[in-house]
Amino acid sequence: MAAHDEVTIALLGGGTVGTSVVELVRENAGDLAERVGAPLRVTAVAVRDLSRARPGIPGELLSDDPMAVATSGSDIVVEVMGGIEPARSCILAAMAAGSSVVTANKALLAEDGASLYEAARRHGVDLYFEASVAGAIPLLRPLRESLAGDRVRKVMGIVNGTTNFMLTKMDEEGAAYSDVFYEANALGYLEADPSLDVDGHDAAAKAAILAELAFHTRVTLSDVYVEGISEVTADDMAAAKDMGFVIKLLAIAELVDGDRPGVIVRVHPTMLPRAHPLAAVRESFNAVFVEADAAGQLMFYGRGAGGNPTASAVLGDVVAAARNRLSGSRGPGESTYTQLPVLPIGQAQTEYYVNLDVADRPGVLASVATAFADNGVSIQVVHQEGHGDDAGLVVRTHRASDAALRATVNQLRGLDTVRRVVGVMRVEGE
Amino acid sequence: MAAHDEVTIALLGGGTVGTSVVELVRENAGDLAERVGAPLRVTAVAVRDLSRARPGIPGELLSDDPMAVATSGSDIVVEVMGGIEPARSCILAAMAAGSSVVTANKALLAEDGASLYEAARRHGVDLYFEASVAGAIPLLRPLRESLAGDRVRKVMGIVNGTTNFMLTKMDEEGAAYSDVFYEANALGYLEADPSLDVDGHDAAAKAAILAELAFHTRVTLSDVYVEGISEVTADDMAAAKDMGFVIKLLAIAELVDGDRPGVIVRVHPTMLPRAHPLAAVRESFNAVFVEADAAGQLMFYGRGAGGNPTASAVLGDVVAAARNRLSGSRGPGESTYTQLPVLPIGQAQTEYYVNLDVADRPGVLASVATAFADNGVSIQVVHQEGHGDDAGLVVRTHRASDAALRATVNQLRGLDTVRRVVGVMRVEGE
Repeated sequence: MAAHDEVTIALLGGGTVGTSVVELVRENAGDLAERVGAPLRVTAVAVRDLSRARPGIPGELLSDDPMAVATSGSDIVVEVMGGIEPARSCILAAMAAGSSVVTANKALLAEDGASLYEAARRHGVDLYFEASVAGAIPLLRPLRESLAGDRVRKVMGIVNGTTNFMLTKMDEEGAAYSDVFYEANALGYLEADPSLDVDGHDAAAKAAILAELAFHTRVTLSDVYVEGISEVTADDMAAAKDMGFVIKLLAIAELVDGDRPGVIVRVHPTMLPRAHPLAAVRESFNAVFVEADAAGQLMFYGRGAGGNPTASAVLGDVVAAARNRLSGSRGPGESTYTQLPVLPIGQAQTEYYVNLDVADRPGVLASVATAFADNGVSIQVVHQEGHGDDAGLVVRTHRASDAALRATVNQLRGLDTVRRVVGVMRVEGE
Repeated sequence: MAAHDEVTIALLGGGTVGTSVVELVRENAGDLAERVGAPLRVTAVAVRDLSRARPGIPGELLSDDPMAVATSGSDIVVEVMGGIEPARSCILAAMAAGSSVVTANKALLAEDGASLYEAARRHGVDLYFEASVAGAIPLLRPLRESLAGDRVRKVMGIVNGTTNFMLTKMDEEGAAYSDVFYEANALGYLEADPSLDVDGHDAAAKAAILAELAFHTRVTLSDVYVEGISEVTADDMAAAKDMGFVIKLLAIAELVDGDRPGVIVRVHPTMLPRAHPLAAVRESFNAVFVEADAAGQLMFYGRGAGGNPTASAVLGDVVAAARNRLSGSRGPGESTYTQLPVLPIGQAQTEYYVNLDVADRPGVLASVATAFADNGVSIQVVHQEGHGDDAGLVVRTHRASDAALRATVNQLRGLDTVRRVVGVMRVEGE
């Protein structure tokens, strides 16, 4: 390794994660110096509000000029401020000034990762972002590096801790959506804009990042099909439980073979068998399940958020970038050689659960079954529940395309024997 | 990257794993060339018996001279022959000839990893060994690299698939040890020397490797305390179930703070609460649970053995070594800077389950409780079971040292009120 007195780090963002990073660099100074080959030193921390008290960050490091901190020429710039701007401009300026960048910014990566990768390549610096997906869980490095000799087929992840907390409460306590929303809010789990969590947008950004790494093709946020959890009812939960299933909000990215190969990336509430490894992931934990040709089934489990877990992932990246700095080498860059198209959700193949409120008279099952058959959707199980005015039909299908299922549901809505389509949900993991 | 026509690979071993490696290099040739930056080419495969048919390996690649293959000057030598010799001599000769080495050889690494690391350092080549622990599961790279900014406190792993298969059968079907041993043998799951599996030696080798990486100190096989599963009875299983526990063979490595800091590395049957993430790891799957200061709890889950899963891990390492080759850089070497001593098992602190067959007469509980108290072991729960001649006492303790528990059990054996110490087991994960 080259002789280097120290490796300098400038931070953009002095919130929970930034403070944890500063504290860990101080507490683990000896370990980090051994692992890197030189001591790490934090030179500056850019914050929005200089007047706020920030225990854990020495006052002389604080600055309210993020661009000045980004371009101060430190070896590594750590971006944990979040949001698109000024984060993007600062990162691009930092790279232009020769700094390697470590970021936790999933929104920016999912929206405009390409320009960050391109800047890193042009300026010969590193871009690491382990903390952007599933917080503390070492996931992106294994996907990019450990599975580099394999072919990943499918990635399914619980990547939003808040919605997993809410769905766990609904499943275990029979709580209504509105109650768990209230509870999550009271606990401070929801983002300032709760729609990012409950409508699936946060999970969608992570899905795009995972898909790009898993399939070596460019995927951005707008490529991701998204449904949130706000339509999931206590009745859906109870029906899932009866069938031995649990409902999770999954981010799913999969390779589609065939005449027109491509990838499909989607986020939606999903029924999973109780025996599936993801079904046991409770509360605010995250987990990502990977299917690869040779490796088979893998799962990575841990804390998806929080200051210390996120800071652990950031620091792992900092150590990698620092070691590269000292040895004059670089980590892997963007890999989009497969150039696979992102296919529309209509081509996604899954099983379905369809819950119908029907009239209780002869011929109902026949008319319902005909609607499925007309659209080429094969039925796996039918449960008839109740009788008289409360008659219900629960149908579970074999694998069918999303387009065929949608057409089936439209046809069901037009039948005079079907009073209401109570619930429709995709089923995975069998 | 330097201009390189190709990266050459010589294999030592043409069994299940070696054949899978050759096949994957062929099937994924395009992907691998993109990810590495140059095509990979297998130049030779050393096997013991040239006369055996090996579909999947072109005949012209085969050789029965492993040392000649090892020293043929290929970029990377992959060692999947297993055993201590001639594997060690071949690896050392390969490194001396300038080749980077990828190995799956847990026994060699656990016995003499230091001399391999030292040779890699001296000759400026890479040594990678992801496949040596928990097969396909990306685990060593995350431990070495992703958690490089954190402090690992404890690693607990199900790292032997055969014994996990056996214990799963005993738990779920109430089968006896002898029956599941017979079944595992009939299925071909057991090693040629079954003691490697059931007596915990295979798990112990992996525990040594995990401990060294997690705690940055040298740990070898002889440092690991080992108990196998052959003493685990259907009664122990039933008692565990009654208490909401499951029995797993765990490889545990932990950091001990205090006046004399160190590490303790042990393999033994362990009771785990059913809600613990490791408790749900069934059949022959492997999983490793990690506790780190900042990251919190992490778990890595997947296939621990088999040709394709192991080959996936080997190829991930091959891609890393090949990329380093092309860029003139090197991966992380041995890190033993903490130089922590390995402490004796007597200092390990866990909770215990103790199952006693006792006389059913007044004063029994008092005499048993006194034996625990005399040795400073605090009791958490006592269950008295049965009556008359079948009286039994099940005791669960608070955390105590192994030495204190051993002294307690010796004292219990000397009591005339205790007819037999039926079972003693460590309890983790609460």
